[in-house]
Amino acid sequence: MVEKYDTVVIGAGPAGTAAASSLKAQGQKVAIVEEDLWGGTCPNRGCDPKKILYTAVEAKERADLLADQGLNTQNSINWADLMANKRAYTQQISPGTHKSLKNNGIETLTGHAHFVDPHTIKVGQQTIEAQNVVIATGLRPRMLDIKGKEFLQTSTDFLDLDEMPASITILGGGYVAFELAGIAASAGAKVTLIHHNNRPLKAFPEKLVKKLCDQLSENGVEIVFNQEITEIQKDTEGYRVIGNDFNRQTDAVFAAVGRIANVDQLGLDQIGVDYSTKGVKVNNHLQSDVSHIYAVGDSAASPAPKLTPAAGYEANYVVGQILGDRTEIEYPYIPTIVFSLPKMAQVGITVNQAREDIERYEVKTVDMKDWITYKRQHEKQVLVQLVIDQKQDKVVGASCLSMEADEMINYLALLIKHGYSAKEVSQTLFNYPTTASDIQYLY
Amino acid sequence: MVEKYDTVVIGAGPAGTAAASSLKAQGQKVAIVEEDLWGGTCPNRGCDPKKILYTAVEAKERADLLADQGLNTQNSINWADLMANKRAYTQQISPGTHKSLKNNGIETLTGHAHFVDPHTIKVGQQTIEAQNVVIATGLRPRMLDIKGKEFLQTSTDFLDLDEMPASITILGGGYVAFELAGIAASAGAKVTLIHHNNRPLKAFPEKLVKKLCDQLSENGVEIVFNQEITEIQKDTEGYRVIGNDFNRQTDAVFAAVGRIANVDQLGLDQIGVDYSTKGVKVNNHLQSDVSHIYAVGDSAASPAPKLTPAAGYEANYVVGQILGDRTEIEYPYIPTIVFSLPKMAQVGITVNQAREDIERYEVKTVDMKDWITYKRQHEKQVLVQLVIDQKQDKVVGASCLSMEADEMINYLALLIKHGYSAKEVSQTLFNYPTTASDIQYLY
Repeated sequence: MVEKYDTVVIGAGPAGTAAASSLKAQGQKVAIVEEDLWGGTCPNRGCDPKKILYTAVEAKERADLLADQGLNTQNSINWADLMANKRAYTQQISPGTHKSLKNNGIETLTGHAHFVDPHTIKVGQQTIEAQNVVIATGLRPRMLDIKGKEFLQTSTDFLDLDEMPASITILGGGYVAFELAGIAASAGAKVTLIHHNNRPLKAFPEKLVKKLCDQLSENGVEIVFNQEITEIQKDTEGYRVIGNDFNRQTDAVFAAVGRIANVDQLGLDQIGVDYSTKGVKVNNHLQSDVSHIYAVGDSAASPAPKLTPAAGYEANYVVGQILGDRTEIEYPYIPTIVFSLPKMAQVGITVNQAREDIERYEVKTVDMKDWITYKRQHEKQVLVQLVIDQKQDKVVGASCLSMEADEMINYLALLIKHGYSAKEVSQTLFNYPTTASDIQYLY
Repeated sequence: MVEKYDTVVIGAGPAGTAAASSLKAQGQKVAIVEEDLWGGTCPNRGCDPKKILYTAVEAKERADLLADQGLNTQNSINWADLMANKRAYTQQISPGTHKSLKNNGIETLTGHAHFVDPHTIKVGQQTIEAQNVVIATGLRPRMLDIKGKEFLQTSTDFLDLDEMPASITILGGGYVAFELAGIAASAGAKVTLIHHNNRPLKAFPEKLVKKLCDQLSENGVEIVFNQEITEIQKDTEGYRVIGNDFNRQTDAVFAAVGRIANVDQLGLDQIGVDYSTKGVKVNNHLQSDVSHIYAVGDSAASPAPKLTPAAGYEANYVVGQILGDRTEIEYPYIPTIVFSLPKMAQVGITVNQAREDIERYEVKTVDMKDWITYKRQHEKQVLVQLVIDQKQDKVVGASCLSMEADEMINYLALLIKHGYSAKEVSQTLFNYPTTASDIQYLY
């Protein structure tokens, strides 16, 4: 007998589990399919394990900045301990998530999902039927199609390294590349970061990216621009990374050259659902070409950045749609962040967008280096850029580079959302002195 | 000739300098009087130097929490370096503030101000006249009237210690006592904190205070409750602290037993302005008994807590009043914080207030210890209490104990101000994973 469900969710990451749990809580009969780790990328091999590693790195860097400034300090990352810590966290995620879904009365199916027809899905030998389907299958690292590509490792491998190699090479110029570079350098590796052009992290303002590169370089990361890598060779010592005018020995090579959606093996072609490497093509209701098949989170080619909070937001939205709401999706401000050293984050209208409409937007650059928050921490590279809508005379976007960038941009996300004026900021009182209380000096 | 001013400000701390600068910018003829350090308590001997010392202490404690958890770490506070850092900051405050006021065209008078009549003030040999007066003279540490009180030091002395003594005793149970205790213990001193009853930090929830005391005790601070100290003796080794059933040797004794307003030497009695140790009695316009004499910040007996952000807020308010506004003052949410180890902060309706109206308020206690933010940092004591207005079904107050309490309460201040519901919190996206992104799990 073919079991019938109100909704089948494919993929049990943050988006899929949120949608499944919420629909179940609303009384639906729900199944969820996962072929890999329950919980998905974020807690198993993404944000959470990355942040666990980053925690020790951040503590080390903050202490190191105070050497001879009030702290007698000697710190080094103990990778084995740190990895044990990370694994203690990640190892309970998949079984824990699976159990929790089952306890909530959601049918869980382990295996690869494949559409038989728009309402019928095969998972291994099992066939199920769904009135609605939510595709939430996430992304996987894109692999480079070069000679010796089999020697490339990914961020997944990095986040589970038993030992930190003495030297590593990272190919890529996105946030993953810059996060891994910071962690590895702090953990003692000689890091080379290679990018095919000279404008990494291109969604972020050039000024901030340059300062981030400067700081990573000062911390020992060698950044190589405009270098197309064409081959990886294995040799007796490790690996050799070869480009047109590049040839270097390294202990390990990691490709962090983007991610592609896990939607190419679902049988979508047969049922008329369009997709690309960016995910399932969706409309303003997050519906695919087949109206009862939705896509959310990383596997949806929606305008939202591929981030856990956005995935959760889309999942909640689709739950509403399935339950009868017909409102088009509107996105809130979604901050983005690079947990490098220092951190870089932004929210709202970006500096890049502002540069394209200089009639409307003004960009205000503020070097906060001499502010007490940064002086007391002896931070070396700190910069904020605010985007001001000149007609409204309001801050509508912000980018920040500093060890406090995560929190500063979170505050600014709220202030921008509520359209705070300088006067309103000055009348909003925060704990003093903190990153938040500094914001009045920005406005 | 007696110089006449639109406004004379007495006291050049954060409140006084803000009021003077703002009135000057609005076209007034302004004089400001200071008898001690220009800039006042906060940057010279309060929040800012405290935070400079706390920065090294916080970095050390965060690293120490990760010992055997991913960080090989050896840290100790180098008090001499730290003090040099602090002094490099504080030494430029008074001359810098003085110069900046003069550069802004404000008349600066150095000396003690004394009212001759409601419009006439004597500063040393100089007599000036004012249409309006703003009293912003701040607070000073209250001294204990006990035998040997001349051996007591204050927070001012602590923040300028050349060396950290091997053992110190702190008398008091307020935020200053708990901040000094944390810093001194982390800097290697054997600290004894003595409070006359068993309910220190009484504005904060008992549960959180108990956990803070537990953590300080675990870090080596000896906390002695219900002990009235009656005498300090100097002996060959240092000092002896004596109570009814207490007698202990120590290297230094600091009294942190509250602060009293610097308004008793201004000649207010002669001109009919009422005041107490809590400051000048003010109405809802921050006017004293004499309508053109205002008081702001720490020296005003207003309902606001004695904090720098509140002082700035009151100063801006009084500027408006002087310039013709007649609105009564309304205070925004004002977060308060204890920078101890860990930090403890709160905002909005307090747990204590909620306990007095259990029909209206519910208190929700959340132990965040197992959340990834706290697990990854290996924090030992973390707790939040939310106050929920049951009629509105909204969070209206929060208290937090953790190393992230400063930021968490800042976020909650904004969310509470805007009356966020749980749904609205879940639809507000923050950088993940951060203290802010955790807040959805609280609501």
